[in-house]
Amino acid sequence: MIKQIDHIGVAVNNTEEGIQLFNAILDIEPFHKEIIESQKLVATFYELGNTKIELLEPTSSDSTIAKFLSSKGPGIHHVAFLVDDINVEMTRMKSEGFRPLSEAPYIGALGKLVCFFHPKTTGGTLIELCQKV
Amino acid sequence: MIKQIDHIGVAVNNTEEGIQLFNAILDIEPFHKEIIESQKLVATFYELGNTKIELLEPTSSDSTIAKFLSSKGPGIHHVAFLVDDINVEMTRMKSEGFRPLSEAPYIGALGKLVCFFHPKTTGGTLIELCQKV
Repeated sequence: MIKQIDHIGVAVNNTEEGIQLFNAILDIEPFHKEIIESQKLVATFYELGNTKIELLEPTSSDSTIAKFLSSKGPGIHHVAFLVDDINVEMTRMKSEGFRPLSEAPYIGALGKLVCFFHPKTTGGTLIELCQKV
Repeated sequence: MIKQIDHIGVAVNNTEEGIQLFNAILDIEPFHKEIIESQKLVATFYELGNTKIELLEPTSSDSTIAKFLSSKGPGIHHVAFLVDDINVEMTRMKSEGFRPLSEAPYIGALGKLVCFFHPKTTGGTLIELCQKV
């Protein structure tokens, strides 16, 4: 089952500027930063109770985040739902006609198992499922 | 202080179609629907742990949601942060240079006190603060 919103991802042109901005919005500092080579991005995390904000800066012009920034500008990029069993939920969503962006879950930020669904099949919202390992 | 993500708002062209879609995505049904006259919209809520999804359908072509749908299409419209004292946080954010869309908090969906900040001042993300009354 889907348990809760785990985090939202926010596309930024520059991580340092994004941190300066979100430090001022949230009145806290990020607790984690990592480069995700497979997705060609730098992810920076803020913790808010049991939810998080993830800033996403592309590290390459062919990153999907770079394409998002080019077409839509900085702002909310995706919502991630925490699930108890990502394989069960991925299978369920596929059976409902939602199209995943990968054949199977893979290790994403913070070491979680993740998968994404194409926003064209989910009413314009890019949805991530994530599971603690 | 900002405690957690309370919900995300998702703009939809049609509430019944949005409910059909999100019932299939989330595998649950909404728990609440209300018309918010002041914002010219219908809000439909799903509960996910201590977070929520709010579907937003405009009830008039001059609703801000209608303008969002015209320019960006359906998808994530805003993120709402739960705060312990909305007046304190609103004052703090104003002092940081963020521009609120109202002079003071007002009663929004689910009877909460809410205020929004202009996305041009928050890096492209429409931010709502909300407080339980």
